[in-house]
Amino acid sequence: MIIVLKQGTTKDQISALSNELNQQYNVTVNAWYGEHSTVLGLLGDTAKIDIEYIQAQSIVESVKRVQEPYKKANRKFHPDNTVIKVGRNTIGDGSLTLIAGPCSVESSEQMEIISGRVKKAGAGILRGGAFKPRTSPYAFQGLRAEGLYLLLEAKRKSGLPIITEIMSPSHLPLFEDVDIIQVGARNMQNFELLKELGHCNKPILLKRGLANTIEETLMSAEYIMASGNENVILCERGIRTYETYTRNTLDISAVPVFKKLSHLPVVVDPSHAAGIPWLVEPLSLAAVAAGADGLIIEVHNNPEKALSDGAQSLTPDTFDQVAAHVTQLTEAMGRKVNNWGVAE
Amino acid sequence: MIIVLKQGTTKDQISALSNELNQQYNVTVNAWYGEHSTVLGLLGDTAKIDIEYIQAQSIVESVKRVQEPYKKANRKFHPDNTVIKVGRNTIGDGSLTLIAGPCSVESSEQMEIISGRVKKAGAGILRGGAFKPRTSPYAFQGLRAEGLYLLLEAKRKSGLPIITEIMSPSHLPLFEDVDIIQVGARNMQNFELLKELGHCNKPILLKRGLANTIEETLMSAEYIMASGNENVILCERGIRTYETYTRNTLDISAVPVFKKLSHLPVVVDPSHAAGIPWLVEPLSLAAVAAGADGLIIEVHNNPEKALSDGAQSLTPDTFDQVAAHVTQLTEAMGRKVNNWGVAE
Amino acid sequence: MIIVLKQGTTKDQISALSNELNQQYNVTVNAWYGEHSTVLGLLGDTAKIDIEYIQAQSIVESVKRVQEPYKKANRKFHPDNTVIKVGRNTIGDGSLTLIAGPCSVESSEQMEIISGRVKKAGAGILRGGAFKPRTSPYAFQGLRAEGLYLLLEAKRKSGLPIITEIMSPSHLPLFEDVDIIQVGARNMQNFELLKELGHCNKPILLKRGLANTIEETLMSAEYIMASGNENVILCERGIRTYETYTRNTLDISAVPVFKKLSHLPVVVDPSHAAGIPWLVEPLSLAAVAAGADGLIIEVHNNPEKALSDGAQSLTPDTFDQVAAHVTQLTEAMGRKVNNWGVAE
Amino acid sequence: MIIVLKQGTTKDQISALSNELNQQYNVTVNAWYGEHSTVLGLLGDTAKIDIEYIQAQSIVESVKRVQEPYKKANRKFHPDNTVIKVGRNTIGDGSLTLIAGPCSVESSEQMEIISGRVKKAGAGILRGGAFKPRTSPYAFQGLRAEGLYLLLEAKRKSGLPIITEIMSPSHLPLFEDVDIIQVGARNMQNFELLKELGHCNKPILLKRGLANTIEETLMSAEYIMASGNENVILCERGIRTYETYTRNTLDISAVPVFKKLSHLPVVVDPSHAAGIPWLVEPLSLAAVAAGADGLIIEVHNNPEKALSDGAQSLTPDTFDQVAAHVTQLTEAMGRKVNNWGVAE
Repeated sequence: MIIVLKQGTTKDQISALSNELNQQYNVTVNAWYGEHSTVLGLLGDTAKIDIEYIQAQSIVESVKRVQEPYKKANRKFHPDNTVIKVGRNTIGDGSLTLIAGPCSVESSEQMEIISGRVKKAGAGILRGGAFKPRTSPYAFQGLRAEGLYLLLEAKRKSGLPIITEIMSPSHLPLFEDVDIIQVGARNMQNFELLKELGHCNKPILLKRGLANTIEETLMSAEYIMASGNENVILCERGIRTYETYTRNTLDISAVPVFKKLSHLPVVVDPSHAAGIPWLVEPLSLAAVAAGADGLIIEVHNNPEKALSDGAQSLTPDTFDQVAAHVTQLTEAMGRKVNNWGVAE
Repeated sequence: MIIVLKQGTTKDQISALSNELNQQYNVTVNAWYGEHSTVLGLLGDTAKIDIEYIQAQSIVESVKRVQEPYKKANRKFHPDNTVIKVGRNTIGDGSLTLIAGPCSVESSEQMEIISGRVKKAGAGILRGGAFKPRTSPYAFQGLRAEGLYLLLEAKRKSGLPIITEIMSPSHLPLFEDVDIIQVGARNMQNFELLKELGHCNKPILLKRGLANTIEETLMSAEYIMASGNENVILCERGIRTYETYTRNTLDISAVPVFKKLSHLPVVVDPSHAAGIPWLVEPLSLAAVAAGADGLIIEVHNNPEKALSDGAQSLTPDTFDQVAAHVTQLTEAMGRKVNNWGVAE
Repeated sequence: MIIVLKQGTTKDQISALSNELNQQYNVTVNAWYGEHSTVLGLLGDTAKIDIEYIQAQSIVESVKRVQEPYKKANRKFHPDNTVIKVGRNTIGDGSLTLIAGPCSVESSEQMEIISGRVKKAGAGILRGGAFKPRTSPYAFQGLRAEGLYLLLEAKRKSGLPIITEIMSPSHLPLFEDVDIIQVGARNMQNFELLKELGHCNKPILLKRGLANTIEETLMSAEYIMASGNENVILCERGIRTYETYTRNTLDISAVPVFKKLSHLPVVVDPSHAAGIPWLVEPLSLAAVAAGADGLIIEVHNNPEKALSDGAQSLTPDTFDQVAAHVTQLTEAMGRKVNNWGVAE
Repeated sequence: MIIVLKQGTTKDQISALSNELNQQYNVTVNAWYGEHSTVLGLLGDTAKIDIEYIQAQSIVESVKRVQEPYKKANRKFHPDNTVIKVGRNTIGDGSLTLIAGPCSVESSEQMEIISGRVKKAGAGILRGGAFKPRTSPYAFQGLRAEGLYLLLEAKRKSGLPIITEIMSPSHLPLFEDVDIIQVGARNMQNFELLKELGHCNKPILLKRGLANTIEETLMSAEYIMASGNENVILCERGIRTYETYTRNTLDISAVPVFKKLSHLPVVVDPSHAAGIPWLVEPLSLAAVAAGADGLIIEVHNNPEKALSDGAQSLTPDTFDQVAAHVTQLTEAMGRKVNNWGVAE
């Protein structure tokens, strides 16, 4: 950490700050006296230093981190990829995992049709929302506990592991048989929820928030990991920009950047990024080309009757095509798809 | 609601959709047949129609709302300002309320000093964080229950009503003697929390999220109101943009826009918007000039030792000046400050 | 075009506006009278109607376009891809064109080395800046006329067609032997320049501005086309968002969206989008997977000595690898690379 | 300037870079050797060092400026406010200047009516566009040379100095009798134009670009100043964000920040920032409260017939009210309005 001091700072002030930093954080402080400004360099483990605390000191002009503020999520300290096993899928080992299913769980029949179709098309994990975060209080809020029940039923019948979103720490007991718990973009900095998820041992798929930086996303992963659960999957699902043609702007660069900075697997959600069905295929292909470990795609047997997100869901037929083209590209790049459905 | 249909849509498809909309939402549907496109106009209460559901229909090209999707928060249906009484303050009646205090509650002494100073300077409500949302799991997380205890002690001693942030529905029982419950920007779309707060009868200060539109903020207010609690105060605290000089970009236009669209009171937080102490005064003055009903400002007796947000806190002496200049401007505009501290 | 009128609008006002629109723009106006609001629908060629003019009418609440405001760039009116021939490259016919070279033209030797290497690696067009837009007036501004001379020399020696940026209409005479004229992101709405370029018959590569929407980009293409030059190539080079890890955020969705809305070819610039050399490969692969017709990549024989943009330039060795991987992916997708250098 | 080096950098590499920086930029380089990283500190005039050049060095991890990259626009080197005299107005001396007039100059009658009204209401400078940057090539492009002629006529008749926008360096001869030349937001980084304007001795009003930072705006001012013309007025006119209710988002913080970092006067354009007439008053008041030296407001005698920007123009009657309220606030803050029209 490098601290630029204000002009006119005295040596006494510098030594007082140096002593305090040394005592409080066990770092050693080197000072470099320039003509117009003085710079301090901090040696030691600075990841846990609160940068705002430093900025609050009256003699401080600005601060620059040299070390990243995350440790457990940091590839520097864990050079090997984290590989997360979910059913027969391995996420993070170079293979590609397809996650597919409806936005909302709606009925037993719906889940049976969709799970059969996506499994056949090559999906290794079934998605489906029981608790639904909706902008409007008047919109369908999900079947909640009943939705979870139907999703577990679909898991038993299809043999596919399942992923579904949690919206409150108090719902955690209901998620016992869920394979991956999803934290939605709107809850990425719901820190009480993150801490709670750090105490369970299930894989957590953490979606990047609409206004969150790559570093903040890694800090939220760090919350879960620091609480004891290192099974975190990062998910890029589009960020909010001024462009209005697409629902959000897929930050494709985040895929290689996450993989460079962190050892955690990275999944891309082209359905929420675009909000437009015909964009799912090109964005899926781009995500694979950029190095994503998985895709999570909304598929509905009857998008026009979907209780949520119908406008961005693929039909099973379209998903067949997307999955085929994605598989072709993945294999052309020397990677394989965790395609258990087809194998059976 | 106006629905533009795709080219080639048949009359049968149109009448099928019209019938369905009529049955499901009790609206009447008028069709206008253009040369290149057909447009449907929906008559009746369309606020509760899920716009995504309409977009999901295969014959639909695009949809445009004519009515706003919020009702309880909408000034059209409640022309008079909502006025919220908190202690001796009236928020929303044209007067200005100053809310001040430390970012985090740290100790009994700190709270006594700060509450005394801000009350004397003209603050009508004391702020202080007990549960603290922090980007890093390694940063100070607030004194939590103990912080609430100290804040309540400061309330008793100073006579000032208090505002503090809630981070989880499960903490609600601890907030029984809190006067205003704050929902932080990161939880603005934590819908489970919003619903829970709709069941209590306390005023809720709802901060706009960093990536949330004005309309989404009103929809989150609607969540609380639809659940039964109409005492909502909106808070503009800066949005995330590409500009890096300031921590966030204060959207000053949001103040008059919120007041135009809604009858709810609007408070501005210049401390979080700017992240820089010397910007608090000009932004406070701008907020008052733009019509804000209140200001919420971070004040710390010793910002350099603050356990959080020291970098943006004012000293009590600086707050004295800001409060004096704000009062002068408010009165010049023919408004009064709810200045109970000085009055005593 | 659909116009929602304000509540309380009289029939006389409506008929006055209808008559005026009919006379001024030769459109017919249909009115639909709802319970709470009245909606007008305009029939005919509405692309040339100034939407701001409509919004300025006192009886107008809001306006929604049904037709796009661009015509010549619109795929609806030109379903076939525009294919632009530059030397032996065909841009827009399904093949991939690699454009490569230094940010700035610096010397005869530099151009000879780089043009030789990028040609051998598969580039079909040579890039190089003579007039350089730089944020600082103290930074290297390009060799200007001399740079153009050196670039033309490199064209003669290498046989590669060249692309270079124009910054002022008055420089146009110098560009007579340039094969593609580039309009930089900062000049995307320099309308006087666009009009001037519409009067020449050379291909124009139009870079999307940092804060410009997809539609605005197509409107700038329309400026060039409406002035008589239909040889426009669109270029996505990253937009400005709040994320700071990358220099800009590559809007990968813009590639398929541009191709859907328009018949013009689309090129991606991963060098400026990322600003980081190791991101050029994954972003190039993603761009090809998403359907780009070409890539424009900065390559320098000695990035550390580059007079501009060294930080994001590839070395010739790294470009060899990127070109090889891009070629492999392109061919796996059933497309071919316009690889003339290697063929010779 | 502080340079963080990559791990593993050798002493030889460091001394090579140090020598080069010393020779090329006449700065001395200090090295500080940490455990995990080495940091270089540069002493001397670093404002002219190209930060991209440093970033391109293979041993460099990251770079941080301590000094600002602008000198002539920097308040550190010119502590006193620059005061620009335009007619009888003094801009930058603590007084407030009102600039008002139509978006586009349309006719002699229009200019006579509007100039009379805005002068009477207190405007000290008349605005009016002759060359109009429009998103669509099919929209009204301004009366161009004829518009300038009509504007000069209005200047003669009203006695008000005039401001109008330039779009190309080649039009400069036409601007001989214009009092302030405006650079529009879309041309803020049209560097060829900025350099040309640096060679004339007229005041330049430089509008911040829609995606440009505060620092980039100051760098564009620096372009004009470095070319010899120090009469620059900065203008905040809203930036592009995800919020769609307003046309742009007025960055009110930019006002005090510009005044802190620079000695140049700052004007606010609430008309373009909001795009909504009823927002002009609250935003004008906020701008004055935040410390703006002037306001530039669109006024049209018949907004419904305006050839451009009618939707955001005030009527003369509304401008009377805005001017009165702005004057009242300005005087309440102990400042005066340069109100020459009324005085006569």
